[in-house]
Amino acid sequence: MQSPLPQRLKSARKLAKLTQEKLSNKLGFDDRSHGTARISQYETGKHAPDFAMAKKMADALGVPVAYLYCDEEKLADLILAASKLDENQLTMIIESISDL
Amino acid sequence: MQSPLPQRLKSARKLAKLTQEKLSNKLGFDDRSHGTARISQYETGKHAPDFAMAKKMADALGVPVAYLYCDEEKLADLILAASKLDENQLTMIIESISDL
Repeated sequence: MQSPLPQRLKSARKLAKLTQEKLSNKLGFDDRSHGTARISQYETGKHAPDFAMAKKMADALGVPVAYLYCDEEKLADLILAASKLDENQLTMIIESISDL
Repeated sequence: MQSPLPQRLKSARKLAKLTQEKLSNKLGFDDRSHGTARISQYETGKHAPDFAMAKKMADALGVPVAYLYCDEEKLADLILAASKLDENQLTMIIESISDL
């Protein structure tokens, strides 16, 4: 059972137009090359970040952390789209779903 | 940075009206009491499941695995609501979001 995180992390990074090195900087790794190597390993699935690191990367990339763990394409698209909404808009969308 | 998984797992289990033991059975733990203890530890945050186990539990509880990692209440509600939809309905909701 492969985690979707490697693929989602790469997509979110590309969406944010950041290189691995730029993301490493944003995450504040002391040793830049170590940070870049670590991100590369997360994207190949060689290492899996713990939740705290996943959350830090999600915040740096401007996506919900749940997106990184989403294994369904359409739901992942919905999570990204919904992340731009405010609470009222989210409530409205949830209500419209229950009306379907 | 606390993972939302303990709280989300408990909520999903209650939503599915399963005891920890019943969930342990559903997950096919050989040693039932070991399984029940393990689930209890996931719900208290003492242990964190790897993605494969999180996915197995999410499937057994009928929720998207992304829900277990969602740290925003409204988005978690949306993920649960959306998980009942088919692909066309999801596409429709995503389009309605982009119209907002």
